[in-house]
Amino acid sequence: MPKTKDLLYKYPHRWGFKDSKFVVENGKVVFKSSRYEILANQVLPSLIPFIENELLGEKLDVNDTLEDNPKKIIPASFRNKPFIAKVTKELKQEQISFEDLDRFCHSHGQTTTDEVFKAIYRGKLQRVVDVVLFPENEKQVKKIIEFAQKHNVCLVPYGGGTSVSSALLLPRKEKRMIVSVDMRRMNKILWVDEENALARIQTGITGLELEEALEKRGFTMGHEPDSMEFSTLGGWISTNASGMKRNQYGNIEDIVQSFNFITPKGEVRQTDFLDRYSIGMQPRSILFGSEGNLGIITEATVRICALPKVKKYASVMFPNFKKGFFFLKELSKKHSYIPASVRLVDNRQFRLGYAIRPSARDWKEKLVGALKKFFITKIKGFDPNEMCLLTLVMEGEEKEVDYQKNKTIGLAKKYSGVSAGAANGKRGYLLTNLIAYIRDFLFKYHCIGETLETTSPWDKVESICHKTEQELLRQHKKFNLPGKPFFSYRVTQLYHASVCIYFTVGLYGKGKKNPEDIYSKIEKSLRQVILDEGGALSHHHGVGKLRKEFMNQVLNQNSKEMLKEVKKSLDPKNIFGISNNIFG
Amino acid sequence: MPKTKDLLYKYPHRWGFKDSKFVVENGKVVFKSSRYEILANQVLPSLIPFIENELLGEKLDVNDTLEDNPKKIIPASFRNKPFIAKVTKELKQEQISFEDLDRFCHSHGQTTTDEVFKAIYRGKLQRVVDVVLFPENEKQVKKIIEFAQKHNVCLVPYGGGTSVSSALLLPRKEKRMIVSVDMRRMNKILWVDEENALARIQTGITGLELEEALEKRGFTMGHEPDSMEFSTLGGWISTNASGMKRNQYGNIEDIVQSFNFITPKGEVRQTDFLDRYSIGMQPRSILFGSEGNLGIITEATVRICALPKVKKYASVMFPNFKKGFFFLKELSKKHSYIPASVRLVDNRQFRLGYAIRPSARDWKEKLVGALKKFFITKIKGFDPNEMCLLTLVMEGEEKEVDYQKNKTIGLAKKYSGVSAGAANGKRGYLLTNLIAYIRDFLFKYHCIGETLETTSPWDKVESICHKTEQELLRQHKKFNLPGKPFFSYRVTQLYHASVCIYFTVGLYGKGKKNPEDIYSKIEKSLRQVILDEGGALSHHHGVGKLRKEFMNQVLNQNSKEMLKEVKKSLDPKNIFGISNNIFG
Repeated sequence: MPKTKDLLYKYPHRWGFKDSKFVVENGKVVFKSSRYEILANQVLPSLIPFIENELLGEKLDVNDTLEDNPKKIIPASFRNKPFIAKVTKELKQEQISFEDLDRFCHSHGQTTTDEVFKAIYRGKLQRVVDVVLFPENEKQVKKIIEFAQKHNVCLVPYGGGTSVSSALLLPRKEKRMIVSVDMRRMNKILWVDEENALARIQTGITGLELEEALEKRGFTMGHEPDSMEFSTLGGWISTNASGMKRNQYGNIEDIVQSFNFITPKGEVRQTDFLDRYSIGMQPRSILFGSEGNLGIITEATVRICALPKVKKYASVMFPNFKKGFFFLKELSKKHSYIPASVRLVDNRQFRLGYAIRPSARDWKEKLVGALKKFFITKIKGFDPNEMCLLTLVMEGEEKEVDYQKNKTIGLAKKYSGVSAGAANGKRGYLLTNLIAYIRDFLFKYHCIGETLETTSPWDKVESICHKTEQELLRQHKKFNLPGKPFFSYRVTQLYHASVCIYFTVGLYGKGKKNPEDIYSKIEKSLRQVILDEGGALSHHHGVGKLRKEFMNQVLNQNSKEMLKEVKKSLDPKNIFGISNNIFG
Repeated sequence: MPKTKDLLYKYPHRWGFKDSKFVVENGKVVFKSSRYEILANQVLPSLIPFIENELLGEKLDVNDTLEDNPKKIIPASFRNKPFIAKVTKELKQEQISFEDLDRFCHSHGQTTTDEVFKAIYRGKLQRVVDVVLFPENEKQVKKIIEFAQKHNVCLVPYGGGTSVSSALLLPRKEKRMIVSVDMRRMNKILWVDEENALARIQTGITGLELEEALEKRGFTMGHEPDSMEFSTLGGWISTNASGMKRNQYGNIEDIVQSFNFITPKGEVRQTDFLDRYSIGMQPRSILFGSEGNLGIITEATVRICALPKVKKYASVMFPNFKKGFFFLKELSKKHSYIPASVRLVDNRQFRLGYAIRPSARDWKEKLVGALKKFFITKIKGFDPNEMCLLTLVMEGEEKEVDYQKNKTIGLAKKYSGVSAGAANGKRGYLLTNLIAYIRDFLFKYHCIGETLETTSPWDKVESICHKTEQELLRQHKKFNLPGKPFFSYRVTQLYHASVCIYFTVGLYGKGKKNPEDIYSKIEKSLRQVILDEGGALSHHHGVGKLRKEFMNQVLNQNSKEMLKEVKKSLDPKNIFGISNNIFG
């Protein structure tokens, strides 16, 4: 019996909840689900035509599918006996698993090509963990690390398994026993300090659990990365996570005030971080983004906020991306009314959104149908192949929220923006949760999809988007892939000098022997273009192993040596041997 | 001839501009100055009575003064000949000074007891730099560091000399030649990127120079520490500086996106920081707060903002500190309208402010005189020995500013706050610049004053303030000092879970042989109380040598070792041997 409890409701290898998936019935896509509100169990007649038109370049053959490989190649577990003996004394039997399914599902994250595709269709990963441990308190974590240090065992911290940077991909050459330390049983809120609006939380908690538990106490942390249903607090700290409501609640480094970091050398501690202080160089600051390379984060003190009285959605249609973008630029300086979340999707993503609408025959009809009641005359002149959608979330007191909404929509008018209602806004955010299900759905039809994100200075957004698309077209041709490449983007975060751009890329691989490897190569070439054009290596996904080879372009030799000294000081035997980022 | 150009207009050892000082004329204090607007050249008849009442406990004897020691004890310069030979080839003659005055004034900062008092009245410092260099570009800085590394010379980066943490106090035991590297000739704005609202600036620029230069281009950086007339960009980065308009513009770590950090090992570099990205552990983050221990910061990329259309001041009177404090707590959550700066001064500081008003006989009369026109009936019932003043700065577009003002003052009413006009607000901020002049003025009358600051969780502010005052009273008794201790505080920064409290402490030392050493001991006991009560070691002044002995209470052994590895990696020969914080 597997001991990974979430396997009861989660897929072991694909993304998401077992009760949710896209299927084809009677030639139409249906989203079977017992959650996700308005989209659950809807027939989506336009989705196949959209995919045919935008990606396949031909009719979808629903009978030509790639089937899951049910036989996983899982080598026997290599056991470090003295380590196991000690761990067995410290942990209960049901906290230790040598089961194949537990081991295999802890040996990968959610990176499409290197991990999910290989796990599902090839049934083979380059290395499989030898045992999975499920500690239930900090003391046990400390013991596990102590034993690993003593007996030279490799530890891999495991949170939600949602990494898309191949950070959980195991080093092929690791000869030592590899132990996955699944933190998810450490999911308690230890205390809530209402007076200072802080909470102390175990880091194995998922976003969903965390928000549910805080909500009962009348609070929210407000951190909502797209992965929040599954990803964990510890994972967010390890990867420099960012949530969509950052404008209001901050990114993870703003939210987390302090945390316990347990390394083979012991704990790294500075007195509780009080928002801000001046004590010289701060160990805390460098430990964000450790990507599993140094130790395990067990508990964190985080900012919490009273639950907002009101949460409202809104949306605005712009005639084209450029107009929407310049609106964003001005909005980013409006500290007094910028909504909690502001996202601008490009025309293709906007159309994809409409293709996921139930009923009506094609997206153009639907679009007109949905909008005509309100402002058909206003959008006359908007080209359906150019227009873009902005979605907004506002939280706070009723008056504040209304002020934000009125000011924001007022400013949008200056850029030809037309209010498109709350429902379109809400749908936009709901779709975020579905993208990964669509990825997994399309796998079987020989399509590979993935997301890439970057931070781009305001003045480079246009060239980064344009040149990345050009490169994708070039690569598509070079590898002689069928159909046409799907390329789409949205701006999801606004900063002073830059924005986060989030790309969605899809390729059709029918007839190719190893489409995942082709995609992998293409992705690297796209990343190089982004770097060449002045974008960042990643805005919030991190480096892991996927972007390791680019680190020389990001840090110079002295910087790397400095970080390696930090590693050496805390983990001299490389117990945390996952080899992400510049390590290994 | 001294080569330190700012000696032309700045005092060599005391604080401030040579054209500004407090003097006593005809038994009354006059503030002689050619700047500082409304306060310049005013007779301040209430100041001496205030001091007599609040600090001396007796009549001020204007004839019993402590005189400056004109003879400074300056040992001969120790010269590392090969280093000097190389430097002489690289730098012009007028960039190298062995002059006594240059050397002595580069051998201390502005810490009252350890530095200023010793420099002025004792004429003796524990160590004096052997030479002062004035590099004019990054290349020269690199060369200086290269030569120092080669010939084992100790380098001390020097910015504005405004440190109040004894960070510029030289290690008594340093046997090597000590070279002060005065960065202030590197004060250029290298470029302004209007599109992304960024600027690249040499770090020797002072706050005043920086804002003047940006203003000409239509921008501001918005960073206004109390020392901004003299302190430098490089100094701010080295000490984790905080400015009073943080609510709007951020603290230094928010403003500075990236910087060049030159160490004996070479440059530490990561690609330009684009507000935020996820590249694993970030070298940049740990290099804030280096306190001169690792290298020299030469250039920084900073956020800039369009000059605000409007700047308005306001003030609010509260019946007592508690009311004002709870108002602040609610205001801190009002992201949509919190003003750029919000400061609440306690009753004693409020009364000091009134004692610095020109004309009228005593502060009570003046207070009544100033306020009666507007709302004398409203404040009936306010006890003049309890009431507190809140001052506000708001910047932005007229409408925004008015919205902030109305909302803020509206909220204040809930806490019995009464609007007290713009003039009182403006005066409050102007006084900030004068406090250090008052310190220096009072020296000669045997008074020693200093500031201490901390970050305190919201729920600990009351106990920290109360217990620190109790400790001061206890220490005053213990050392059998004359008069009574002056103790006052203001809240200057608001955060999610905490605030910055800024204490002003004054002691009367008449008849004591080494009052500065007594004060020094007392300050340490106050700091311990602050730490014991849950306050931070410092909010923005830093650690330097003044708070070095407390670092064990702030960082654990593993944290310190980690930081020491960072130092060893970048400066293995301890060229930057200033020994601040945990180093040396």
